[in-house]
Amino acid sequence: MKIELKHGAGGQATGKLIQGCFAKYFNNELLNKMEDGAVLPKMQGYPVFTSDSFVVEPLFFPGGDIGRLAVCGTVNDLAAMGAKPLYLTASFILETGLEMETLEQIVASMGATAKEAGVVIVAGDTKVIEGRGGCYINTAGIGERQEGIVISAHNLQAGDGIIVTGTLGDHHATVLTSRMGMESRVRSDCAPLNKIVGALLEGGIVVHAMRDITRGGLATVANELAEASGVKILLQEEMLPVNPAVQGLCGILGLDPLTMGNEGKLCIVLPAERAEGALKIIREQKYGNDAVLVGRVEQGEGVWLQNELGGCRRIQPLQGEGLPRIC
Amino acid sequence: MKIELKHGAGGQATGKLIQGCFAKYFNNELLNKMEDGAVLPKMQGYPVFTSDSFVVEPLFFPGGDIGRLAVCGTVNDLAAMGAKPLYLTASFILETGLEMETLEQIVASMGATAKEAGVVIVAGDTKVIEGRGGCYINTAGIGERQEGIVISAHNLQAGDGIIVTGTLGDHHATVLTSRMGMESRVRSDCAPLNKIVGALLEGGIVVHAMRDITRGGLATVANELAEASGVKILLQEEMLPVNPAVQGLCGILGLDPLTMGNEGKLCIVLPAERAEGALKIIREQKYGNDAVLVGRVEQGEGVWLQNELGGCRRIQPLQGEGLPRIC
Repeated sequence: MKIELKHGAGGQATGKLIQGCFAKYFNNELLNKMEDGAVLPKMQGYPVFTSDSFVVEPLFFPGGDIGRLAVCGTVNDLAAMGAKPLYLTASFILETGLEMETLEQIVASMGATAKEAGVVIVAGDTKVIEGRGGCYINTAGIGERQEGIVISAHNLQAGDGIIVTGTLGDHHATVLTSRMGMESRVRSDCAPLNKIVGALLEGGIVVHAMRDITRGGLATVANELAEASGVKILLQEEMLPVNPAVQGLCGILGLDPLTMGNEGKLCIVLPAERAEGALKIIREQKYGNDAVLVGRVEQGEGVWLQNELGGCRRIQPLQGEGLPRIC
Repeated sequence: MKIELKHGAGGQATGKLIQGCFAKYFNNELLNKMEDGAVLPKMQGYPVFTSDSFVVEPLFFPGGDIGRLAVCGTVNDLAAMGAKPLYLTASFILETGLEMETLEQIVASMGATAKEAGVVIVAGDTKVIEGRGGCYINTAGIGERQEGIVISAHNLQAGDGIIVTGTLGDHHATVLTSRMGMESRVRSDCAPLNKIVGALLEGGIVVHAMRDITRGGLATVANELAEASGVKILLQEEMLPVNPAVQGLCGILGLDPLTMGNEGKLCIVLPAERAEGALKIIREQKYGNDAVLVGRVEQGEGVWLQNELGGCRRIQPLQGEGLPRIC
């Protein structure tokens, strides 16, 4: 069976889709009330609110799919703000011709990823547009940030260290090879990172700033952080972790892992003297084994890359289009 | 200038679009921090969370546009839960070829509608897909519901009255005539309804259930409510308010205003003895002048329409596709 316009018309066909698919995999008390909105328990801390849309193509790729991506992307945005992700909404724009079975696989993946991350999907929406079997997903998320946590792009200080929690460019390289129909050993790193952040905060590690490294790669994230705080970021080229398969692909295609997106890596800025303790905690977590200190914050401006010979060049944020639709 | 893939790649072109367009019209302290998520002030009451995507075509129609619709839709879902809408996110999926000027008009309309409704747009996202100038918008929203308010589809009771806050089918008829290129006097009723709800609650009116009447029309909303509460809803045909221009159109095209969507009308269920007081309050509000009592709740099941001669027929929810993409 394929998705038709009636599935988005808000009548009985929409109702059947909600009951037969979304409610089945997202199953929780708040969603099951099927109201216009979910009434959440009261919150002691500060609510943190974010939203992302996902338009990746293909819908399935080695290491993940658009459903896992849609949950991880919003969970990671909340985690990067120092919040504990709690509730998501899931809104679907489906193109006619999408196989119901494909949709069900995507929704099942979202349910499983939400469970892994410890969040619940409490509300949603479905629209159908004329098309050729495409699927676009928006997730919005609410997290709770405890009193006293100050994590902000405006908070970098000279003397801080820069940690990345694993290899760069994996997701980007995976979507690229999938779209090109290439055989490759690369796999998306798409993963929820809230347990890494939770372990850091519980471990008493003071974090100044944090971003998940997505579109535009570390080059773009680092430039945004440096600009927001009016500081210089110095990255050590030999310290940047890149998976050999990704490195090979970059060589062949003339790509730079620094501007390539991940979907399961954080850039963490914290006082340099706390970096060792933080790395120990991060490396104990499922998605943090390859975490490494890659640079430091200094007075000045811009992002600079220093190589082993001492050469130094300025790194710009992504300027062109990168790879479209990696998320 | 037209939207290109680079505007969704997360690099400098995305940054310019955010600063030059979104930040300009959504301008507020929380958004301007440009973090991965917005840290909101603490909330005393219960957070209410909802999300909707908007895919209406054409993007502009008499009485509104997709931007106004996207803000009103989410504001109204929160209001219908008895919550005060406070914060929205706005996530855009843009097709290549969309004129920047068109996007700016839509974003300006969102900013103006948010201001009218008293909500702030605190976070967002932009993706670009290959296409022919389309624009899809997701808004998620957080509202605050005060202690003691119990408004739920499961809460209808025999003896309740049913109010609709104005004429049925206006938005649906408008989008339909716009798509068909017909000249018509109909105008969308797209409007934020939170002030009506706020006035009712401040006036001490006990509301049992509330829904904004969108896709599927009053027939679908009433069936959902009747089913959720295990009761019968009896509607009086002669009381149902329909704009003469919409009625004329329905006659020509064989449409039923009962299954046609609005974007600025509420269905309110409350103890019948409070209906007169509620109507007085609603009619004083900008978007409630034509509010009227249209029916009552009884023991039994289903939704029934009684005509002036005493005839009674059962009303089903929307079964086919209605008009696709009215929101």
